[in-house]
Amino acid sequence: MDTQTADSAFIRACRRQPVSYAPVWYMRQAGRSLPEYRATRAGTAMLDACSNPDLITEITLQPVRRYGVDAAILFSDIVVPLRAVGLDIDIRPGVGPVIDKPVSDDGDLARLRDLEPGDVAFVSRAIELLTAELGGTPLIGFAGGPFTLACYLVDGGPSKTFDRTRSLMYGNPELWRALLGRLADITISFLTVQVEAGASAVQLFDSWAGIVSPEDYRRSVLPYSRRIFAALAATGVPSIHFGVGTGELLGLLGEAGADVVGVDWRVPLDDAVHRVAPGKALQGNLDPAVLLAPWPVIEERARAVLNKGRMAESHIFNLGHGVLPDTDPDMLARLTDLVHSVPAGPAR
Amino acid sequence: MDTQTADSAFIRACRRQPVSYAPVWYMRQAGRSLPEYRATRAGTAMLDACSNPDLITEITLQPVRRYGVDAAILFSDIVVPLRAVGLDIDIRPGVGPVIDKPVSDDGDLARLRDLEPGDVAFVSRAIELLTAELGGTPLIGFAGGPFTLACYLVDGGPSKTFDRTRSLMYGNPELWRALLGRLADITISFLTVQVEAGASAVQLFDSWAGIVSPEDYRRSVLPYSRRIFAALAATGVPSIHFGVGTGELLGLLGEAGADVVGVDWRVPLDDAVHRVAPGKALQGNLDPAVLLAPWPVIEERARAVLNKGRMAESHIFNLGHGVLPDTDPDMLARLTDLVHSVPAGPAR
Repeated sequence: MDTQTADSAFIRACRRQPVSYAPVWYMRQAGRSLPEYRATRAGTAMLDACSNPDLITEITLQPVRRYGVDAAILFSDIVVPLRAVGLDIDIRPGVGPVIDKPVSDDGDLARLRDLEPGDVAFVSRAIELLTAELGGTPLIGFAGGPFTLACYLVDGGPSKTFDRTRSLMYGNPELWRALLGRLADITISFLTVQVEAGASAVQLFDSWAGIVSPEDYRRSVLPYSRRIFAALAATGVPSIHFGVGTGELLGLLGEAGADVVGVDWRVPLDDAVHRVAPGKALQGNLDPAVLLAPWPVIEERARAVLNKGRMAESHIFNLGHGVLPDTDPDMLARLTDLVHSVPAGPAR
Repeated sequence: MDTQTADSAFIRACRRQPVSYAPVWYMRQAGRSLPEYRATRAGTAMLDACSNPDLITEITLQPVRRYGVDAAILFSDIVVPLRAVGLDIDIRPGVGPVIDKPVSDDGDLARLRDLEPGDVAFVSRAIELLTAELGGTPLIGFAGGPFTLACYLVDGGPSKTFDRTRSLMYGNPELWRALLGRLADITISFLTVQVEAGASAVQLFDSWAGIVSPEDYRRSVLPYSRRIFAALAATGVPSIHFGVGTGELLGLLGEAGADVVGVDWRVPLDDAVHRVAPGKALQGNLDPAVLLAPWPVIEERARAVLNKGRMAESHIFNLGHGVLPDTDPDMLARLTDLVHSVPAGPAR
């Protein structure tokens, strides 16, 4: 990456280098809460928008223009690489990702072929366009974690607890290992494409990993996430690891090898510091539902997050999960300004 | 309660008295996984079934007959007391509880009047019928926790994270306190009716309490749950407290005052022992998704739960959440026999 990007607050914070304020971006900053997004997306299906370099570029830039956040995140969806290798998967409005034939036996694995750069040429092209526009603002690439991809493939669609996925993991460990191995390979290829095209950091969203116990995570999920972060380390760009409801797993998320561990809203950052081994930056963790409350409540709680973030070796401000659709963009603008106005604590 | 019931393995384990095996029952044991349940319910809406003493009695008894579990749990739903005080609430098949007019301002509180015993006469009648049939097998009464009831009332229906509820809790603490206070009153009245009719224990399902941080739980939820358990303590029957994803909150769930703390499947029981202050029995916590795996996996994992349960002062075997609809009843029958065949550890 260029010197200006490498010296940005976001990249510096990922690398635990001193910064003058906590850099800030928001998970799902590009999307449903923005009127300009809804105007851009009107009449275009989600996965069609995710396959169009011009739309990806425009939607990715919208929150950067509006909020002045410290990083852009590629507009995409975690199922994009799965569709790119030929799976019949769609995102149904108001529902989420739905796969036509869920994975249930060894024969289904054959459908999970390797991902070639040509399968996601639209992503490479969008990233080239974006890095030209963004200048020194870092672009975060992303992918879903192998456990979370398996959740959609095995349960067949969204669920509160993905019971079939856990059942397969417990009951058919051979198929599970083969499945996670293939998903890790696809994820490595997809993230490598993004880094080679110019992404200056990547986040692995293993959103639903929090539904398994630490013991099962260690045995059945960690090896695959670790393989992904080892491959990423070789590229030299910083990596972030995040999942919802992963309080019990924070130490293991760190062990997987990312530079930054994302924390959901339920674990105070000063607690998270003790659960993650030294040598990591922390990212998070204002409850996105706070943004639906009046501004004085938002300010008080954001300042509390910033204060607790000072206990970390390095802190990137974010929400504890994605921006909610009903969020008032003006509140995110004020929040961004607030975070930028608070001097960072001393580097630790 | 009669001497035989008071001397049952379940009631003894609740009171941390020595038992020869860990007593076992299953959350949602009465319901969707049983063919005899589906036959009994055919053509009857959920809340109509919950209002019919003969149906409540039959459905409550079905799993006791089939499995020989150590306790029956009243067939009901957490929204029953809300509908009993006149709220326009329904359970839509495949969706869950849906309320016509969600709570959003002070004016909505007026709709939450106190619950009178006559509002739930069908429950009292069912419990009288049940205790006559059950003999020495304890009957567990139950209610939803005030936080979880608020989730349905504020968000208006099921949700993964009940964002509006958290937003109201953060942004309008006065309305929140008034709402939780009224829900606690209704819950106390509803549980008192059940105990007076003959329930020999009660479980408070604060199912979704795990979506708030410990600090918010302590400030905005705990006082109301504590009030409920204080009222229950006066009745002399043992009480159980459970919520999903409450690993961070286990200590606080114990502080609320129940005799037994239920543990979800993500926290090993030997860890839970250290999070809950002494003086409590623990209940749980086989992952319900394990029951969809082959029997050898079920047996191995059930034995692991029993082994870890020996670290508790007293252990009641259960799942870490409700029985899944696709569960094979034969597996629950084998599991019950297995639990009964394993001698309890020494009382601690």
